Amino acid sequence: MADDNVDFVGSKEVMSYVLAVTTQFNKGSDEVVLKARGRAISRAVDAAEIVRNRFLQNVEILDITTKTEELEEEEGGTSNVSAIMITLGEK
Amino acid sequence: MADDNVDFVGSKEVMSYVLAVTTQFNKGSDEVVLKARGRAISRAVDAAEIVRNRFLQNVEILDITTKTEELEEEEGGTSNVSAIMITLGEK
Repeated sequence: MADDNVDFVGSKEVMSYVLAVTTQFNKGSDEVVLKARGRAISRAVDAAEIVRNRFLQNVEILDITTKTEELEEEEGGTSNVSAIMITLGEK
Repeated sequence: MADDNVDFVGSKEVMSYVLAVTTQFNKGSDEVVLKARGRAISRAVDAAEIVRNRFLQNVEILDITTKTEELEEEEGGTSNVSAIMITLGEK
């Protein structure tokens, strides 16, 4: 899948991610992946649920996976953060 | 699956949910489900990742599903909240 089908969910308002995903499907993408880390994970789930329930009834969640990523701290050392990948696709 | 294999993740420290899941597997459960709503979703993912990476290497994430639940507001009316169910099981 091309990288332009991946949306990174951060601290913006959830509807901006809903709009991004919806736009990508409307431009012809078959699949769109939402990626998020840490506290933005909840927002990624919200965005996926809103897309499939309210905007694109022909889209469903195909797969959800999680992993642990290692972040380098500015002051040295590393910390672990959870990440989620939600794959949305047409039914 | 019996209800005592379900842990509801709320606002406690993540390690309390890690301990709950680990204890259930050590008592003989084959599967444990973490459920969370709203902002606790990130914490449920953290707990699942910590269990499988640090505490129980023979446990993996079998399934992750999400849904939208309708909450009744105290002042009347309803609001929607996203929920996640993470099923952990032995490899």
